Amino acid sequence: MPRKICFPITSRAYYGRSQLLIRKLHAHAGVDLKLMLGGSILLDKYSRHVADDIAAGGFEIEASLFNVIEGGNHVAMAKTACLTALEFTNQLYTTGPDVVIICGDRFEQLAIAMAAAYLNITIAHIEGGDVTGSIDESVRHAITKLAHLHFVTNTAAERRVLAMGENPKYVFNTGSLDVELAAVVDTAITSAQVNAFGVGHPIDIDQPFVMVVQHPVTSETDNRAHLETTLRAVAALDMPAIWFWPNPDAGTGEMADSLRHMRERHPELTAKMHFITNVPAESFVALLAHASCLVGNSSAGIKECSFLGTPVVNIGGRQQGRLAAAHVVHVGYDAEQIRGAVVSQLAHGRYPSADIYYRPEASSAVVDVLANVELYTQKRFFDPGEPPAGPRPGAPPAR
Amino acid sequence: MPRKICFPITSRAYYGRSQLLIRKLHAHAGVDLKLMLGGSILLDKYSRHVADDIAAGGFEIEASLFNVIEGGNHVAMAKTACLTALEFTNQLYTTGPDVVIICGDRFEQLAIAMAAAYLNITIAHIEGGDVTGSIDESVRHAITKLAHLHFVTNTAAERRVLAMGENPKYVFNTGSLDVELAAVVDTAITSAQVNAFGVGHPIDIDQPFVMVVQHPVTSETDNRAHLETTLRAVAALDMPAIWFWPNPDAGTGEMADSLRHMRERHPELTAKMHFITNVPAESFVALLAHASCLVGNSSAGIKECSFLGTPVVNIGGRQQGRLAAAHVVHVGYDAEQIRGAVVSQLAHGRYPSADIYYRPEASSAVVDVLANVELYTQKRFFDPGEPPAGPRPGAPPAR
Amino acid sequence: MPRKICFPITSRAYYGRSQLLIRKLHAHAGVDLKLMLGGSILLDKYSRHVADDIAAGGFEIEASLFNVIEGGNHVAMAKTACLTALEFTNQLYTTGPDVVIICGDRFEQLAIAMAAAYLNITIAHIEGGDVTGSIDESVRHAITKLAHLHFVTNTAAERRVLAMGENPKYVFNTGSLDVELAAVVDTAITSAQVNAFGVGHPIDIDQPFVMVVQHPVTSETDNRAHLETTLRAVAALDMPAIWFWPNPDAGTGEMADSLRHMRERHPELTAKMHFITNVPAESFVALLAHASCLVGNSSAGIKECSFLGTPVVNIGGRQQGRLAAAHVVHVGYDAEQIRGAVVSQLAHGRYPSADIYYRPEASSAVVDVLANVELYTQKRFFDPGEPPAGPRPGAPPAR
Amino acid sequence: MPRKICFPITSRAYYGRSQLLIRKLHAHAGVDLKLMLGGSILLDKYSRHVADDIAAGGFEIEASLFNVIEGGNHVAMAKTACLTALEFTNQLYTTGPDVVIICGDRFEQLAIAMAAAYLNITIAHIEGGDVTGSIDESVRHAITKLAHLHFVTNTAAERRVLAMGENPKYVFNTGSLDVELAAVVDTAITSAQVNAFGVGHPIDIDQPFVMVVQHPVTSETDNRAHLETTLRAVAALDMPAIWFWPNPDAGTGEMADSLRHMRERHPELTAKMHFITNVPAESFVALLAHASCLVGNSSAGIKECSFLGTPVVNIGGRQQGRLAAAHVVHVGYDAEQIRGAVVSQLAHGRYPSADIYYRPEASSAVVDVLANVELYTQKRFFDPGEPPAGPRPGAPPAR
Repeated sequence: MPRKICFPITSRAYYGRSQLLIRKLHAHAGVDLKLMLGGSILLDKYSRHVADDIAAGGFEIEASLFNVIEGGNHVAMAKTACLTALEFTNQLYTTGPDVVIICGDRFEQLAIAMAAAYLNITIAHIEGGDVTGSIDESVRHAITKLAHLHFVTNTAAERRVLAMGENPKYVFNTGSLDVELAAVVDTAITSAQVNAFGVGHPIDIDQPFVMVVQHPVTSETDNRAHLETTLRAVAALDMPAIWFWPNPDAGTGEMADSLRHMRERHPELTAKMHFITNVPAESFVALLAHASCLVGNSSAGIKECSFLGTPVVNIGGRQQGRLAAAHVVHVGYDAEQIRGAVVSQLAHGRYPSADIYYRPEASSAVVDVLANVELYTQKRFFDPGEPPAGPRPGAPPAR
Repeated sequence: MPRKICFPITSRAYYGRSQLLIRKLHAHAGVDLKLMLGGSILLDKYSRHVADDIAAGGFEIEASLFNVIEGGNHVAMAKTACLTALEFTNQLYTTGPDVVIICGDRFEQLAIAMAAAYLNITIAHIEGGDVTGSIDESVRHAITKLAHLHFVTNTAAERRVLAMGENPKYVFNTGSLDVELAAVVDTAITSAQVNAFGVGHPIDIDQPFVMVVQHPVTSETDNRAHLETTLRAVAALDMPAIWFWPNPDAGTGEMADSLRHMRERHPELTAKMHFITNVPAESFVALLAHASCLVGNSSAGIKECSFLGTPVVNIGGRQQGRLAAAHVVHVGYDAEQIRGAVVSQLAHGRYPSADIYYRPEASSAVVDVLANVELYTQKRFFDPGEPPAGPRPGAPPAR
Repeated sequence: MPRKICFPITSRAYYGRSQLLIRKLHAHAGVDLKLMLGGSILLDKYSRHVADDIAAGGFEIEASLFNVIEGGNHVAMAKTACLTALEFTNQLYTTGPDVVIICGDRFEQLAIAMAAAYLNITIAHIEGGDVTGSIDESVRHAITKLAHLHFVTNTAAERRVLAMGENPKYVFNTGSLDVELAAVVDTAITSAQVNAFGVGHPIDIDQPFVMVVQHPVTSETDNRAHLETTLRAVAALDMPAIWFWPNPDAGTGEMADSLRHMRERHPELTAKMHFITNVPAESFVALLAHASCLVGNSSAGIKECSFLGTPVVNIGGRQQGRLAAAHVVHVGYDAEQIRGAVVSQLAHGRYPSADIYYRPEASSAVVDVLANVELYTQKRFFDPGEPPAGPRPGAPPAR
Repeated sequence: MPRKICFPITSRAYYGRSQLLIRKLHAHAGVDLKLMLGGSILLDKYSRHVADDIAAGGFEIEASLFNVIEGGNHVAMAKTACLTALEFTNQLYTTGPDVVIICGDRFEQLAIAMAAAYLNITIAHIEGGDVTGSIDESVRHAITKLAHLHFVTNTAAERRVLAMGENPKYVFNTGSLDVELAAVVDTAITSAQVNAFGVGHPIDIDQPFVMVVQHPVTSETDNRAHLETTLRAVAALDMPAIWFWPNPDAGTGEMADSLRHMRERHPELTAKMHFITNVPAESFVALLAHASCLVGNSSAGIKECSFLGTPVVNIGGRQQGRLAAAHVVHVGYDAEQIRGAVVSQLAHGRYPSADIYYRPEASSAVVDVLANVELYTQKRFFDPGEPPAGPRPGAPPAR
């Protein structure tokens, strides 16, 4: 009987970067893949058509759970996580998977991991062990302590996961799925394709442009001000820019509101900006590959751009501490500092490709483990001096 | 303005062992204590009158949240955690505490910790770092990775919490609150008091008796069989026994059912047993101090009994790996093995007091930190080779 | 394509009385029956094995939703309804039925009806229009105002449903399913069968006995006292009694607790009583048919016993106003009044069968409408003087 | 002790129209007013600053409950209702009011009514008995059957509430609070004030303009198409228009999306339109009073405009059946029909004031009943031929 593997997808970012993995799991004879959708992936304004695309890809969708609570603040985010956990509990109980895949560090993924842990389901965690800022840091490590199989993307992360008491037998440094995708997709893209995605100033893809991806930092309270600081810095460059809408974490409401206000009331600042809410993952990589500089606080700046060699100006604490190559300049929330850093990155031009997050066939490595590793559920803090953990002899089988 | 400290109490056990702490927090001029009740503490059948006692103690109860979902199985337990998180999110948002105290490793405590983390509230965790069996092990460590202040009870636990990347500045080995209570309460108790608590065979407190506390192991599936194994072993001793009702985790239903069945249909086996659902924490300690041997899988056998010197027969994996003194004999789910171990513990008699979990004034030490330590919310994996973590310079204040 | 009909079953009573309907829906070629379980039907202590029996009956169970919140009080009951609504919304959305069947007046059934209404699903309501006491009265009528198809059990109920503005075209007086079942099942039962069901004094089915079914009245606060009043009255009869455990509405905890207390501490009062938590619907009818008198506040006393001719002493307001035949004596919460009424009913002996709730083939009549009636979702208050309601010409189809 | 009255406010519309009532309840010595906020009132994009305004008005806000689930479709709407019920259950249980005020027919108000009913709290319902289209019709009547005190706004509604079995003693025709507000507010407004509210074409308040308020019809599936039909009809008038954003019911997402698309991609159609998401209730009335014609499906067209004499073109089934004066022309979803109807209403000009919904001092009449009527909770279907309902003699007091 094939191993039943559940993949809960709760944001467009996770779907985009997991496409190779999903396709390979779906194609594997020993795996019965169960996709479950929840969170912002179901909401038009963030992910128009993504759910449709998933279904169109020939993947059966086991459940579609609407569980994003409006508010765009901490309490709404926390309640969204709780409701997500409640609904995934029901669905996981009904579906009864052998393994649940948890991605990264988003708040609702910890909630699903908690539900799976209480249901005695083996948890596979992708991208643990990294150090960053925001609440994501704590969430990522808490998931590690609930998870049974760890797919880390770099050696520093591997070291930390092991320090936290995870068994080396179940920790796999496969490299990053995002970077694998960046390495294999076709990065050709036309101006017409880009301009069809959004609104505002049309972009000529063959001319220099900057790309801005600035998400809310949920542990900070001045996301609106920080967005406007960046916007003024980018406006001062007086060159074309593609600006991506923020993702739906706490603080997103005020940032979106500010963008709308700026467009409506300050056309002089936004005249050369093209605004996009969402593009397919491949097109996002293509834009990264074409951009003269990426500005903001996206993890793509640290990871995908390390491989692509795109210069990056990383703003604030959201990616603080994450392993970075030479292509990143870190700046604070200061318009002049941001503008200056972009100018010098533009002067520098592209960087050589770095492989700190890259291993070829990352997704195949993950699939191979998921399909074949011996599963267990009872965890124990792994202490190199103590006898090995894993399933105790004579322990009753899970569930 | 006094520091607002929220203490969510979700089981009679946490209330019992935290009494000294609660009283001292309540009495501290720099602390505004907010008690919130949820989970089984509100349910008569597990905790008759505990909520009333709390209110009678002069403590104001900020909220009483009914959130235990019936079923006594994994899915009900998981959903209880989710609902608890949802409701505590609302209440924590309304109350707006500076600190939330999370106790131990119960499933609903992780849920509350998750809610607090997303609300950017400082989390203080009591009793992290221990190694045990069951899902409790993972839950305890996941809470550690969400928590900002750590009160551990022994040096082995301290070592593990530090290994997991917590900042030594915020890790405090205060000893165990349970054991502090065991050290200070009056252990005098009369037969009349004991017999008023439960039903069945009357106990003569001055004659030898065994005490049984066997809780469900949520990661196992044969709790009913294991309970009956223990019951047959204890019946075979042919001596008076006090049997405590199991706590309300997944598996409790079948265990309670089995106990009722045994009483109704097998009076020959239960003829010398006295059944108790609940007693005040002080009386529980008094019974531990009087018992000739404690049988089962309660943490009290490992912790309180180490100090009291009561011989213990610990059954199965629930306390597996927890630091134990010489007074504990570990056995599997085997009636003859259990009976034999009790017989030899009875022959041995009481042990000398051990202080592996004991430090005088544990509760005062916790209160002192909670009232005075500088609070922070942004965590970062602490790597001894890297610069110290804690609040980043210039970081915006939490909330 | 067969019509997809969803039947949410949330209590053993609804399952018992709906057996004929379920079997006929399942057998109908034009119907695709979807059973969904929730509420107390999933909880061992109220409905041991009922879920298993349902599955064993060859019916596929679409979902099993644990949503009973413990507490046994109003707030727990209200929250149970809300959680039920939330979870059934998800499941109904996934299943996408054409019709949802809502039974009677239980609090969680209104919640499911609300969910179905918001999902634009046609609602069929069984047993609307009756007048009783408790919150059930309001709940029943509120369901009527959400429902599209009405299956009433008597002419008085039919008159009220029409008065409330329902379209006569969609109101069907089919008689009671409970009474139809009572009319067709084999009422033979042996003492051995009866005594296997419960605990306490063994019953000789061929000797006179009274049967007690007293449920909580959720709008009253002294359910414990009322139960003890009845228990003392029945004890004073000094004859064998079969006592049924109360159903799980608000107040059940104190009533169950009182029964346990009485058994343990007042054996003199309970010496001739046999206690049963649950029996199959057929056995319940058989016991009604054998009992010399039914005491309490069950609707079975009003409905099934009208057909069976069993004398009934109905206590308190729970069935107040419900259409009753001559076999019922109404009394208040007064031990002497209750005892006296039972004595005179025993003296009177069985009554002739009444058909106020009985129509042969009630279940077939319901199935026939469900399978064939034109479905609609947009309701309108039916005013005999206005043009007929129902689907508006040109209105878009539901969903 | 003052009577504790809880007023849950879940939409800007309810807040706007209830202002006089809220102020008078707040000022009444015998009333302890408890405002609770939930639903869209807390969400910036629909109700910017309304919550702030409420707090600024000197009213204490007992709780702010974020419970709108994103999706803008039926399942999200249904789940929002369920979550609202769950959270209000907790808050009502904690607050313990004597009376809960339920307004109108919004889906989340039925959910709150259900919660209150299960908690045995007296329910006062404002604006029952009306006949309209959509799911609102059923919801309104279901609330009536849960409510104990009925404040209806017109004689036709009064007749229906009585027909449904409500006791005449508790049915009060006070006239409409909305219309009372329309009758007393200052309708002076300047162009500058209007243009500060929204975006797009500036309005000259002294020149003729049409006003469009078209909300989703939750029981229909083509809200986007219907919106675009109206937009083309209004564009064809070639005159200034003020267009209000739709309210947040199922279907709102596609309508908002369509409006954004039309503005961005079809400037020729929207060139003379001014778009407003929200204005204070007084300004809304002022705009109604100035508009040459109101187009859409708002209840304000039927109610407030009957008193103000503003011509109305009412589109589709949302207000179908509601008592209307001569100022309303009903049309279907047909651009030419809509345009033609507006042209002839413009030619007709303003209508004389009608008083079908108007009684002076409506809010004082409601306050008077709420503060002084004898409260009860046990309802019973009122049958003129039977003895009067209301509290039964000797019935225990609620709660």
